[in-house]
Amino acid sequence: MSHQNIAIEKTRTALVFIEFQAEWLTENGILFQRLIQDKDAFRTAVTNAELVLNAARKVAWTIAHAGLDLRDDPKCLVFAEGKDVLGLRAAIPKAGTWIGSGAAFIPPFVPTDGEFVARGRSGASVLKNSNLDAFLRNNRIDTIILMGFATHVCVESTLREAHDSGFNVYVVTDACAAFTRAQDEYFSQHILHHFGAGITAASLVKLLNNGDAICAS
Amino acid sequence: MSHQNIAIEKTRTALVFIEFQAEWLTENGILFQRLIQDKDAFRTAVTNAELVLNAARKVAWTIAHAGLDLRDDPKCLVFAEGKDVLGLRAAIPKAGTWIGSGAAFIPPFVPTDGEFVARGRSGASVLKNSNLDAFLRNNRIDTIILMGFATHVCVESTLREAHDSGFNVYVVTDACAAFTRAQDEYFSQHILHHFGAGITAASLVKLLNNGDAICAS
Amino acid sequence: MSHQNIAIEKTRTALVFIEFQAEWLTENGILFQRLIQDKDAFRTAVTNAELVLNAARKVAWTIAHAGLDLRDDPKCLVFAEGKDVLGLRAAIPKAGTWIGSGAAFIPPFVPTDGEFVARGRSGASVLKNSNLDAFLRNNRIDTIILMGFATHVCVESTLREAHDSGFNVYVVTDACAAFTRAQDEYFSQHILHHFGAGITAASLVKLLNNGDAICAS
Amino acid sequence: MSHQNIAIEKTRTALVFIEFQAEWLTENGILFQRLIQDKDAFRTAVTNAELVLNAARKVAWTIAHAGLDLRDDPKCLVFAEGKDVLGLRAAIPKAGTWIGSGAAFIPPFVPTDGEFVARGRSGASVLKNSNLDAFLRNNRIDTIILMGFATHVCVESTLREAHDSGFNVYVVTDACAAFTRAQDEYFSQHILHHFGAGITAASLVKLLNNGDAICAS
Repeated sequence: MSHQNIAIEKTRTALVFIEFQAEWLTENGILFQRLIQDKDAFRTAVTNAELVLNAARKVAWTIAHAGLDLRDDPKCLVFAEGKDVLGLRAAIPKAGTWIGSGAAFIPPFVPTDGEFVARGRSGASVLKNSNLDAFLRNNRIDTIILMGFATHVCVESTLREAHDSGFNVYVVTDACAAFTRAQDEYFSQHILHHFGAGITAASLVKLLNNGDAICAS
Repeated sequence: MSHQNIAIEKTRTALVFIEFQAEWLTENGILFQRLIQDKDAFRTAVTNAELVLNAARKVAWTIAHAGLDLRDDPKCLVFAEGKDVLGLRAAIPKAGTWIGSGAAFIPPFVPTDGEFVARGRSGASVLKNSNLDAFLRNNRIDTIILMGFATHVCVESTLREAHDSGFNVYVVTDACAAFTRAQDEYFSQHILHHFGAGITAASLVKLLNNGDAICAS
Repeated sequence: MSHQNIAIEKTRTALVFIEFQAEWLTENGILFQRLIQDKDAFRTAVTNAELVLNAARKVAWTIAHAGLDLRDDPKCLVFAEGKDVLGLRAAIPKAGTWIGSGAAFIPPFVPTDGEFVARGRSGASVLKNSNLDAFLRNNRIDTIILMGFATHVCVESTLREAHDSGFNVYVVTDACAAFTRAQDEYFSQHILHHFGAGITAASLVKLLNNGDAICAS
Repeated sequence: MSHQNIAIEKTRTALVFIEFQAEWLTENGILFQRLIQDKDAFRTAVTNAELVLNAARKVAWTIAHAGLDLRDDPKCLVFAEGKDVLGLRAAIPKAGTWIGSGAAFIPPFVPTDGEFVARGRSGASVLKNSNLDAFLRNNRIDTIILMGFATHVCVESTLREAHDSGFNVYVVTDACAAFTRAQDEYFSQHILHHFGAGITAASLVKLLNNGDAICAS
């Protein structure tokens, strides 16, 4: 499947940073420790995302930060405290993630003035039950470019829901990381093209520097 | 239209308090000052909501607080700063509401331990793009009882969306207030029955005291 | 509240016709007979909507038809057969509307080639659980112009949800009808400006004839 | 992750059959021919789904059919005719699937009286923009059991969205099929537990025969 000539226009596009928070980005983060097996691949993804972030800030592209933050709901009432629910809704309360310092954004991914921080998110997809969708719609953004963690969990759920909701979605494949390199490769080979398209951090940085209207190959 | 014999079961029902915040509940709140014309009716609604809250807390019914809070987004990026958008999305940034002390919950409506506080809300309906829906679904709640402000704006938008989303919705008609009594009467006479049913605060308090399973007439 | 200078651009705008079906538009339609009290006002609304439709077809504006059609679900399973549900979900199965000939579109409002027909709709808002939202998003439409029935029920629910979902919404106030003129006046005076803006059929026809980019006052 | 003691209660559970239509289930179906590489695995999945369907019909469990059907929209207006959109929204119009005989349900998966047929669906997730969610909510169903095609595309998108929306989701792993056995194995090993749980067709049939309340291990 080729995607030539679909424009990525600055005024209609947002970069979405998914979970650049301490739970993943610090050496003692619970998720980094327990889940990330290919730690070098993970660190490379962070570095690449930083390159994109810096380029985007220089040219004032729209940036949204979509973390998970349960510090105001430490019992995870939103997930019924993990009782009688399957999946992440049970796993998160059990692991005790996102309710403390693990929810902090880590420099340089700390939101700055003019950057949007999604609130209310309570699913793997950062669009589900969050005000990110409202932000995007109200700002007439129809294209999103995703980075973050983990590729095959929250990034992929966002990709899938965004596709179904009518967004064009690009995934910066080397600015995301799954638990293993093999999972990242599987995602790129078997999943991504059904719902969007991939782009490398280097290509994206180049495009950001080019200015207003760009095309993906 | 009669609604006999539809049970309101404790385990499947939540009380939802809409915007019991300083913007409405204090004498110098912007919305109270500018919009509320029948101030006595408004104060009666607050008193009635307090009776319901106290009764609910005594018997540990599920309580959710659905305010609006833009203190983390003072430029209203979520509403495109009010630019080129119609309705409340333009009116809120223009009025400067919800970005400061007006967003504080007012006693006794300050959330206490075990009570849910909806986050992310960005529409007139407190269900739209907030994690209230996730909280309700994950806790297997299919019936909601609404109180708050203003009747014909945010309460009614919530009623309408909740109906369409598959909830049974009750509105505590004398624990809500519109800008005028006439608007409240119009809502009760022309709108409510299409989407839900009304209940008085006194009836609801009685039912809450009765315990587990109750019926609406 | 003034809404000057918000452009209505042809490529980003759709006209949405709500329930121009036999249940309302024929003399023996159940809803026309039971609910419409000011029948002249209703007929005027249909005439005005026809003027808009003809003008739009001439200049090929995007047109969507959002009816209700339960002919494939005559027991109203989607509404739990009306059991233990409040509001329209109970009223519709009881009235037996939309399951037979009442669901037919009536000329000239019968969809023609290139016009979209929303499917799946199951709420008062024509956006809820229908593919209209997907159609609009995928076609990069962010502005919708509403006509139809009844003003204070399905048109208003659509207006409210569309506002919350990030659309700019215009209601052609004289191409909609409530049950009574008083209800239409109430809607225009007390409700509409919170969520969108009004336009008359004559103004809209003029704007449609003007071509590509137009402004609302 | 273990999921002991989460009840699957008959009154709160629906079986959802995803795309048991000619496009997949006939030898000359476009998707069967082009995408299914391990045809024996596919046929086994159909056989297993049939066993579940027969058992469910005997004991009158709630059944929903969630196909894709664009016969009323042969230009795929809902997908902007595939123009300037990424993913399935472009691939479907290009392939010409779902607009003709390929959209027919195939015996014994043809819906019978009392079984729900989802309408309006326009995403990979059968919940997105369809009335399936309304059907489930209005009928107070909070648990869904998925079967169908393809595992890693539409079944998985449904699993992910349903999780995020507050449903407990079970996937009948041997009544689904991906394009290859390896993709099915990957899904079961790396994806499923984040969002739900697996069950075999044989276990499900046994549970269906047991009657009202059952547990998953």
